[in-house]
Amino acid sequence: MAFPEILQRVIKNLASLPGLGEKSATRLALYLLSRPPEEITELAHSLLEMRRKLRLCKRCFNLATEDFCTICLDPERDAELICVVEDPAALSAIERAGVYKGLYHVLHGVLSPRDGLGPKELHLPELLARVQQENIKEVVLALSPTVSGEATSAYIVQYLKEIPVKITRLACGIPMGMDVRYADQMTLKRAIEARQNL
Amino acid sequence: MAFPEILQRVIKNLASLPGLGEKSATRLALYLLSRPPEEITELAHSLLEMRRKLRLCKRCFNLATEDFCTICLDPERDAELICVVEDPAALSAIERAGVYKGLYHVLHGVLSPRDGLGPKELHLPELLARVQQENIKEVVLALSPTVSGEATSAYIVQYLKEIPVKITRLACGIPMGMDVRYADQMTLKRAIEARQNL
Repeated sequence: MAFPEILQRVIKNLASLPGLGEKSATRLALYLLSRPPEEITELAHSLLEMRRKLRLCKRCFNLATEDFCTICLDPERDAELICVVEDPAALSAIERAGVYKGLYHVLHGVLSPRDGLGPKELHLPELLARVQQENIKEVVLALSPTVSGEATSAYIVQYLKEIPVKITRLACGIPMGMDVRYADQMTLKRAIEARQNL
Repeated sequence: MAFPEILQRVIKNLASLPGLGEKSATRLALYLLSRPPEEITELAHSLLEMRRKLRLCKRCFNLATEDFCTICLDPERDAELICVVEDPAALSAIERAGVYKGLYHVLHGVLSPRDGLGPKELHLPELLARVQQENIKEVVLALSPTVSGEATSAYIVQYLKEIPVKITRLACGIPMGMDVRYADQMTLKRAIEARQNL
């Protein structure tokens, strides 16, 4: 290999990230070297600061820079609603939609015994405690309608079944803008079953 | 945006890299947060060390950690041959081929007046000086056979025309494993003109 060792180390680190192979990692490292040195410093320092500052909200496990996240601390949010999401990216997607004003509970995964992800790792005991103690009226399950997401949703319904709380899930149907002819069978089946009055 | 400010800063920095948009940058940042914190530290520190340690070889402008690069310092290399390449990635590709044993001259670009890349920025005066002073027998132009690469090669031939040195270029033809039926016209034209005896 004709590259200096430190460059090879950067390439190896970048290539370990998802979606980057050795070729794209090499391209990124050489691109960074071709830029003003301040840009490398800024990237590296922002990574270190992210590592140092970010933690999980003690109540909902969303990303936070204090004990509680900005959503949990916001008095404007409807504290009787909890939306259960797989991870912070799903939370962010729902926030961008701009219509949900309740709180969240972030699982950081879905049930996967193979990966050691059971109810405890997904913070389900904490969800149960919140529903019991926080005067929650409704739990909105917003997990993806995939095999593992559906299994996790079904498990949570069982997990909370002793508690008198309303449990709902995101509507499943044809996505906006999609041609009905190209929708898959399962999606169409759900969309027909859950057809809405006009 | 539901993400803490420091996470948004990391995403912005990652999204400024070539080939990464906001979505993939968000995925990378959240992936890093899901990993052991040592991995973020290692990535950031390797970037800073790369920035601190790497410089350009004073002779050939290859990447180096000392005044001269490992290739220029290697007494086994044939010091009468200079291969002109566009950048360190091209140099690395030629090294991997394992057949070239001479020295290099790294342009860090091709001629592009629009981007302010003229002969000086491409270290052509230094190339001229090397050919005059270093007892060079042959200059191998290894620029890509693209419009800008060809223009730069033609310019270098002119630039060195007063010097009695042999100038060659990489052979142009059908790449190994390629179906002749799918080769483009220009490549086929070159391959026919440069056909080799068997």
